[in-house]
Amino acid sequence: MDQSLNASARNVQDFSRLVNPRAVAVVGASNDLSRIGGQPLKLLTEFGFKGKVYPVNPKYPEIKGLTCYKDIASVPKPCDVALVALSSNHVLSVIEQLGAAGIPFAIVLSAGFSEVGGEGIELQRKLVETAKRAGVRLIGPNCLGMLNLHDNARIGFGGTVQLKTLIPGPCAMVTQSGGFGFGVVATAAYYGVGFNYAISTGNEADISMLELAEFFLERKENDSIMLFMEGITDGRRLIALGERALELGKPVLVWKVGNTDVGRQAAASHTARMTASYELFQSAFRHGGFIEVRDMDDLIDVMKVQRTKRVPKGNRVGVITLSGGAGVLIADRCIEHGLDLPKLTDPTTAQLKELVVSYASVANPVDATANGYNDAFASYNRVIAAVIADPNIDQVIARSPRGSAAPAWSRAFIEIANATDKPVILNWPTSPDDNADVMKLLEENNVPCILSPGRTVRALASLNEFAQKQQAHAKRPRKTATRPTEKQALNLPAGSGTLGEHRSKQALAAYGIPVVKEVLLSADDVAKLKEPPLPFPLVVKIESADIPHKTEAGVVRLNIRTLDELNAAARDVLAAANKHDSKARIDGVLVQEMASGLEVLIGAVNDRFFGPVVVFGLGGIYTELLKDITRRFAPFDEATAREMIDDIKSAALLHGFRGQPALDVDALAAALSRVSLLIADHADRIAEIDVNPIFVHPAGQGVVAADALVVLKDKA
Amino acid sequence: MDQSLNASARNVQDFSRLVNPRAVAVVGASNDLSRIGGQPLKLLTEFGFKGKVYPVNPKYPEIKGLTCYKDIASVPKPCDVALVALSSNHVLSVIEQLGAAGIPFAIVLSAGFSEVGGEGIELQRKLVETAKRAGVRLIGPNCLGMLNLHDNARIGFGGTVQLKTLIPGPCAMVTQSGGFGFGVVATAAYYGVGFNYAISTGNEADISMLELAEFFLERKENDSIMLFMEGITDGRRLIALGERALELGKPVLVWKVGNTDVGRQAAASHTARMTASYELFQSAFRHGGFIEVRDMDDLIDVMKVQRTKRVPKGNRVGVITLSGGAGVLIADRCIEHGLDLPKLTDPTTAQLKELVVSYASVANPVDATANGYNDAFASYNRVIAAVIADPNIDQVIARSPRGSAAPAWSRAFIEIANATDKPVILNWPTSPDDNADVMKLLEENNVPCILSPGRTVRALASLNEFAQKQQAHAKRPRKTATRPTEKQALNLPAGSGTLGEHRSKQALAAYGIPVVKEVLLSADDVAKLKEPPLPFPLVVKIESADIPHKTEAGVVRLNIRTLDELNAAARDVLAAANKHDSKARIDGVLVQEMASGLEVLIGAVNDRFFGPVVVFGLGGIYTELLKDITRRFAPFDEATAREMIDDIKSAALLHGFRGQPALDVDALAAALSRVSLLIADHADRIAEIDVNPIFVHPAGQGVVAADALVVLKDKA
Repeated sequence: MDQSLNASARNVQDFSRLVNPRAVAVVGASNDLSRIGGQPLKLLTEFGFKGKVYPVNPKYPEIKGLTCYKDIASVPKPCDVALVALSSNHVLSVIEQLGAAGIPFAIVLSAGFSEVGGEGIELQRKLVETAKRAGVRLIGPNCLGMLNLHDNARIGFGGTVQLKTLIPGPCAMVTQSGGFGFGVVATAAYYGVGFNYAISTGNEADISMLELAEFFLERKENDSIMLFMEGITDGRRLIALGERALELGKPVLVWKVGNTDVGRQAAASHTARMTASYELFQSAFRHGGFIEVRDMDDLIDVMKVQRTKRVPKGNRVGVITLSGGAGVLIADRCIEHGLDLPKLTDPTTAQLKELVVSYASVANPVDATANGYNDAFASYNRVIAAVIADPNIDQVIARSPRGSAAPAWSRAFIEIANATDKPVILNWPTSPDDNADVMKLLEENNVPCILSPGRTVRALASLNEFAQKQQAHAKRPRKTATRPTEKQALNLPAGSGTLGEHRSKQALAAYGIPVVKEVLLSADDVAKLKEPPLPFPLVVKIESADIPHKTEAGVVRLNIRTLDELNAAARDVLAAANKHDSKARIDGVLVQEMASGLEVLIGAVNDRFFGPVVVFGLGGIYTELLKDITRRFAPFDEATAREMIDDIKSAALLHGFRGQPALDVDALAAALSRVSLLIADHADRIAEIDVNPIFVHPAGQGVVAADALVVLKDKA
Repeated sequence: MDQSLNASARNVQDFSRLVNPRAVAVVGASNDLSRIGGQPLKLLTEFGFKGKVYPVNPKYPEIKGLTCYKDIASVPKPCDVALVALSSNHVLSVIEQLGAAGIPFAIVLSAGFSEVGGEGIELQRKLVETAKRAGVRLIGPNCLGMLNLHDNARIGFGGTVQLKTLIPGPCAMVTQSGGFGFGVVATAAYYGVGFNYAISTGNEADISMLELAEFFLERKENDSIMLFMEGITDGRRLIALGERALELGKPVLVWKVGNTDVGRQAAASHTARMTASYELFQSAFRHGGFIEVRDMDDLIDVMKVQRTKRVPKGNRVGVITLSGGAGVLIADRCIEHGLDLPKLTDPTTAQLKELVVSYASVANPVDATANGYNDAFASYNRVIAAVIADPNIDQVIARSPRGSAAPAWSRAFIEIANATDKPVILNWPTSPDDNADVMKLLEENNVPCILSPGRTVRALASLNEFAQKQQAHAKRPRKTATRPTEKQALNLPAGSGTLGEHRSKQALAAYGIPVVKEVLLSADDVAKLKEPPLPFPLVVKIESADIPHKTEAGVVRLNIRTLDELNAAARDVLAAANKHDSKARIDGVLVQEMASGLEVLIGAVNDRFFGPVVVFGLGGIYTELLKDITRRFAPFDEATAREMIDDIKSAALLHGFRGQPALDVDALAAALSRVSLLIADHADRIAEIDVNPIFVHPAGQGVVAADALVVLKDKA
């Protein structure tokens, strides 16, 4: 494996020759350098690319002083990448020729594949087949190519890739929208933020966003990666990427779009990209090494603070300003983002009192007042140094001063900021042109300067979010943790469809999830009863795979207290079932003990992109109206289940709300973990599980599922 | 009244001579122009101020070529404003002299008043007294002065006020943080956004933020005002300002800080400003003509779109881009902000199909693709024009193109954008320096260019939010609407304290709010009963003003079904009350009918800054854990109460959730409105009302309050 990859990198496809080729063949080269076949020649010769460039076009002997080859077979070896800029009907034969010539990678700019639908879809299918046969891996089609600013290899086309202002930096972008993504690279450069790489993946017929992301994450020159994502189909691979990011301490900045129905339709109409619901992406982002960004400013600010490579030890922030108003504002935003503004220690407070005027505030946030301007900010720097040194403080936000004394101040400040390993961030008080040289000097010396106070806090919060996830990840037991139960055989009927309640509960019981005591009887059995099959009070329900919504169908009777009532109820529900759906297959009458406790629901779905996911909430209005639910990818252990329980806003109800007893959270966590194993072990057959309600009893007294529904799918 | 004020302006103090004085006396003038007494002379002579400038200092005959006066009495008349830059111990005598000399306004920069606590508070009290006696209105103390960029009157000190880059614009700022606020003026100027005025109000010993805001809102040259607010004490005046803003169609941009406990403490320590809870401010902002901004970018973006003075007729947005990714992203954000992306009409769609390439998307968001670059954006402009003309569309966001063809494109685009009165906003695709001249030309021609796609949508959403509030305000009946009930005498006991449940409910009943049937009896009365005082089942509670939390005290018995049970319950609750608090005054035993229905709560508090406020929610966990509550300022009518009911997330429970019957929302709205009248009519005596629970019955069957508590306060 390449030396530029992390030593611990596992199972990662090595794309080093793709992103930094020894030579590039430009297939369909044009001598008009403004055209799509000409632009790459300009880009590869005028921006310092060190590899060789081989134009291919039988029409010309040379272009721009470069020998032009009549066909791909004539191109000298070694050649690692072919840029294909021909119309779609020529692409398949080119790929075959690349295979024959031993050129391993193609970047296919050509449009006219799956994004146009109909015949384009078929053409793309053939392209994939051809590439596989030829042994060629390809980027695209329908993409804008690649920017490698680390090695000056710009292999693509478009206006933005030709800008001289673009700068490299320790981040690699993979973008599903080339036009937008390359625009981001240009904008970031203006704010001093660079990218080593940016690849536009187009239709992803072969090489996917995630495959490239995995590779870039392992590259030593990248401290982070950034994904502009419309959709992906392999949710589990995304989750694994997030775990690897935590292991490496390199965040994956993700800008996900297509999150609303309207946005999703727009994404589908422009790249025919299908995708899972945004909620599942958010779950993946929240628990893995991702930082979700939502706008250009977000991205730039997060990159500025991330590149300092400082990791806050805790969430305690010291804030220092020259204006009370700014301190109040920053304090508010810190609290809103879950950061803490603790008291400074007494020695620090005493020290500050000697440094500032009497009407200054030495509490956190510290307001040194405009009086800080009176000594060219010498005392202001001492104030900042004192706060940084305070053991109660993990990181600092300071408002930078402005005016003619700022340059001298900044040189002294840089020494202070670099004498600590705590994150130190400046909030720039005015516009980027005000003392622009000072900002440049500060940022060159590892001090991020963020515009706007709110944005400053948001950026710092992202640093804390990642640090906290990294710390939690380091503490978490590895995947080898023992399962609470082995995989169980379930004896499921063939085909898709709904299991009846009794059979659904048998599946739960097989996984050790407590269910209410119940017996399945025929109407005749019930009529012959001399004594109740279970102690009164009882519940009677119809058992039918064809009537999944029993309450709505009127086939449930509660609180039955005598044998006569039981008999009547059995007849009642059979009649009601017949009335509801005379064709429904009836498996009998289900007689259950009455259960009570706090009602919660455990659901599970087998998402076609993310695989099995478990949902937890209080059910009813809490789930439907208040959306107070949480999700985790299955399987997971009881510790994760406990985190899940505490995720919901109404969690206090389980821990003893308003003097009520604390409930059996341990038993609930066990049930959640077991449901996650049930669906994960049988993901080939189980499409959905709905355990609703499951009653939670006081601590030590367990939980019991009162109703359940398992939906099967055909084996794939 | 001044000609520069709106003709309809009522009861507004005229500060025209303060903000644009015929002459300014600088009291404590210094011939060192870098000092606090010298800076104003530089500012008033070098920035085009047309009024006269009179330095006052017995030490000098002249400063900077200006005659220097030995005392205030010698200053020529007329002189409208004195800038006071002396130490705090001299200020009182200066104010007296100003009064004697007939100078009506003072701007007091001096610090050392209430913000330092102790003697400073007393000094400020004397300052207010002195000013009142002298007939002088004053700004400050402890402020940075005033920027009037409309008339070039810069009357203050500090670094930012000396910047030559500041620009005027149709907005007036009032700021409670001078340092921060003036920094905002400087930053905004960099982005082409100007302010006519910015006043730093300091400690607001006399002239308040709201008084200035009312004045500026009426000035014809201001289309909006902006408040940087740490806190205000007159919430009702803020609400009235918001209503006036809707009447005039001029938004009040408000940047409120000090919203968390930490932020509030920081605000108190820097200006000793006390303030109401942020939730009440948010209620005021949400229902009045305010646009809340939360960061520098927000403010600048909102000002850019507001100054176009275009009002969207509805919330339907057409989005047009050259890159699918950008369209997807903008579509997502529009939906998140409550904007709609409707289908375009068939004729528009047909027209677009002829303008774009086959793989473009002509659905909304329209993706013209990078192919738009191939004809110097001529067809892109035609696409934009077609979407603007679509009758399904109220407003348009377009991504502006970049590159060398952009200047010519922009000139044609300006014509298109100015041929409509629909809002047309550009999302700038890269950095502000990319085609900066094009951005300048566009903005000079009423086309706002917003950086970052998310910010673009947020800015447009603010335009819609204000337009919708304005439309709702125009439809709302005026305050003369009839009250559902007249003011009622309540016969309340003197002094502060809690009323017992029975007396609390009598107050509710006096305002026509239905309460459960109940009788107040002594234990002896109960023992003598031959038949139940109300039909069984009944509830028994202790009636005691000293035991407000009855359930916790164990003095409630439910579901009583016989006379014996009733008798026992009466003895029980008396014993329990005695056990709970042997000193509690017992007024008897309250015997009530059992009530049922959906439990909701109506609360009311008499906030010391905002006055009476009514709170509504489902109570219990919904209020405590899920915060699903809403607030309105009292009094209000039933229409407002209905809006309030629909504010909460769980409102669906009232409208018939999951096949349940719809509940009596009319009766609930009537009860809410009546509680609002009760507390508003008796705001001098009622501190709090808690109606919890009030049961809501099915439609047509009313509501009934099952428990209530009124807390009294001493008459002020």
